[in-house]
Amino acid sequence: MNFKINKTKLYNALMIVSRSVSSNYPVPALSGIKLEASSEGLKLTGSDADISIEMNLSNDIDEELGLSILEEGSIVIDVKYLLDIVKKMDSEEIQVEIIDGTLTRFSGNKVEFKINGYRANDYPTIDFSTPENHLNINAGLLNAIIDETSFASSSKETRPVLTGVNFQSNNNQLIITATDSYRLAKKVSELNSGEFNITVPTKSLNEVKSIFNELDKDLDVYLNTKKIQFKSNNILLQSRLLDGAYPETERLIPKVFNHTLVINRQDLINAIDRTSFIKTDNMSIIRLQINSKDDITITNKSQEIGEFREEMNAISYEGEPLDISFSGHYVIEACRALKSENIMIQFTENMKPFILTKEKNPEDLIQLVLPVRTYN
Amino acid sequence: MNFKINKTKLYNALMIVSRSVSSNYPVPALSGIKLEASSEGLKLTGSDADISIEMNLSNDIDEELGLSILEEGSIVIDVKYLLDIVKKMDSEEIQVEIIDGTLTRFSGNKVEFKINGYRANDYPTIDFSTPENHLNINAGLLNAIIDETSFASSSKETRPVLTGVNFQSNNNQLIITATDSYRLAKKVSELNSGEFNITVPTKSLNEVKSIFNELDKDLDVYLNTKKIQFKSNNILLQSRLLDGAYPETERLIPKVFNHTLVINRQDLINAIDRTSFIKTDNMSIIRLQINSKDDITITNKSQEIGEFREEMNAISYEGEPLDISFSGHYVIEACRALKSENIMIQFTENMKPFILTKEKNPEDLIQLVLPVRTYN
Repeated sequence: MNFKINKTKLYNALMIVSRSVSSNYPVPALSGIKLEASSEGLKLTGSDADISIEMNLSNDIDEELGLSILEEGSIVIDVKYLLDIVKKMDSEEIQVEIIDGTLTRFSGNKVEFKINGYRANDYPTIDFSTPENHLNINAGLLNAIIDETSFASSSKETRPVLTGVNFQSNNNQLIITATDSYRLAKKVSELNSGEFNITVPTKSLNEVKSIFNELDKDLDVYLNTKKIQFKSNNILLQSRLLDGAYPETERLIPKVFNHTLVINRQDLINAIDRTSFIKTDNMSIIRLQINSKDDITITNKSQEIGEFREEMNAISYEGEPLDISFSGHYVIEACRALKSENIMIQFTENMKPFILTKEKNPEDLIQLVLPVRTYN
Repeated sequence: MNFKINKTKLYNALMIVSRSVSSNYPVPALSGIKLEASSEGLKLTGSDADISIEMNLSNDIDEELGLSILEEGSIVIDVKYLLDIVKKMDSEEIQVEIIDGTLTRFSGNKVEFKINGYRANDYPTIDFSTPENHLNINAGLLNAIIDETSFASSSKETRPVLTGVNFQSNNNQLIITATDSYRLAKKVSELNSGEFNITVPTKSLNEVKSIFNELDKDLDVYLNTKKIQFKSNNILLQSRLLDGAYPETERLIPKVFNHTLVINRQDLINAIDRTSFIKTDNMSIIRLQINSKDDITITNKSQEIGEFREEMNAISYEGEPLDISFSGHYVIEACRALKSENIMIQFTENMKPFILTKEKNPEDLIQLVLPVRTYN
């Protein structure tokens, strides 16, 4: 293997592919990026077994790549060193050449690095075959969906399927759900595609968000029951899916409400945020007492630290007085996902789940939070 | 105690005083800041026993302070909560009042916090009496001195006196020394003051640097054999000194040299930095081979990772060829402290300490580094 390439272009590509590589992975070769030089160009592959990324660099796609393949071949270089080497090279054109077995030389102007790589044959075979279901989704819309839901997924491995976001498609509707069983986010989108019901790891979706950030582009999405692929230009990101049936959540969402509050979103976020340092059992528990739209009190008490109290006004309130307590953190995250000036909070009673929505189009995105029992 | 004050002014003052407070200190009251309201104004005190800061706020010093003392008194509030409370208050004027025992209310417009404090009587008495030796030093000069030397002090507690910077004054010369016994920084300054020989903890000097950052101001410095005080406007920072005799370092600095290299400082930093990820026993060991000013090679080899090589040119070189190895990290830090375009490196032989200085005025600041034995 022997090729020349523009340093910055290679570095930017390696930065993307490296997002799928976790150093210290049990399979040593997987802590590296595979470089394959062929007549078609330079292919980069990275994987941590959950997520795999393949990127094809060629002068056809990028005129400024300056790729010239002097000899075909392939090698795997540890990502820990590869990024540093390429970044710190002293010239814009760099040359990469296998000089002896797996010893690979990176040379610039007056600088050269010789690094021991892994044989490409030792790199696990990754099945990048294209799954049968295809849909087309705007990257901006996908990123918004991820922002609006993924934070509600679980960070605990006790129920693995809850560490992902569920995508369910039927009747030209795409329903996206995330829950950690204390709160839930549900988004409904129109989408003309076949039927499927899959759960994508939240970690993979966060990588999708950071890699496909040209928001006005369309992504090709391919999926089956085992894996999902996101594809744009020369980047292919593939993620495994989470096994296990995603819980039926529809029945958890209350339909009848006795109390409806409309309030300025930022005011509520600020009030809860002010008191986030007052924690009981490592949780900031907010008590919300509503008598009328102009008589709303937020309090947070801790035996050890002290007490916080803020008077608030709402836009409107319908219903009897209410006294309810909840995790401040959950409500702040729900509010942040609802990007509208005012939000609507609908309650059934003080020990039943309540839902937060935008004031307008409340069906579009539902944030559900379970209250907390307190002994104030 | 009951007073009103401008929120931002109080917050900024608390940020400064909090630099001396380490939460989780064994004496609970020391994890707080003491607030004392009297007819003279508001006094803030923080301390972690090594460093203590006292700040006096009054309308005489700062017109925009808006301080009005409604009732004299004092309280200690945990710094963990105090900064958050003041920062997040919802109005520019805030009121602070002891309402019951140590329960203290912070109130803004529609927000109030009630926090349990500590009794001011439980706060240790800190002796802020003024030591007898006085000198006047420009804050910019002091910060430069700290930058040029303190990094060379030890971070290990095995020889406590080496965790500080030594200041020695006699014959109108101030000699500043820091060493971790593998490298040494020595600065010589003119200073008209009495004789002293003290070692100030590096940690304290770093706080001095970050607090007294109005570089065109003069600081009053007071010291004796036990403590040192830095004073400007209404801020007083006091640090204990390190016990024990500082080692005699003068005889360690070689006076006769057989090889003299003058080289561009940034080129050398870049070359060493490129290879800093190649480590042997967690140390990046650089081998420098000089044949002539235009035949200089920097290499770094690691059995495990690979090999780096860069060809360099110097401005000038006098002496026989030289082959020497050293810690890349130490030489980079020494180079960074020498703020001149070109630096001079003087060697005796390959297993003796070498010194780095500016090309011009080399006596002003000396950086000494011990070579490393290698088996290349």
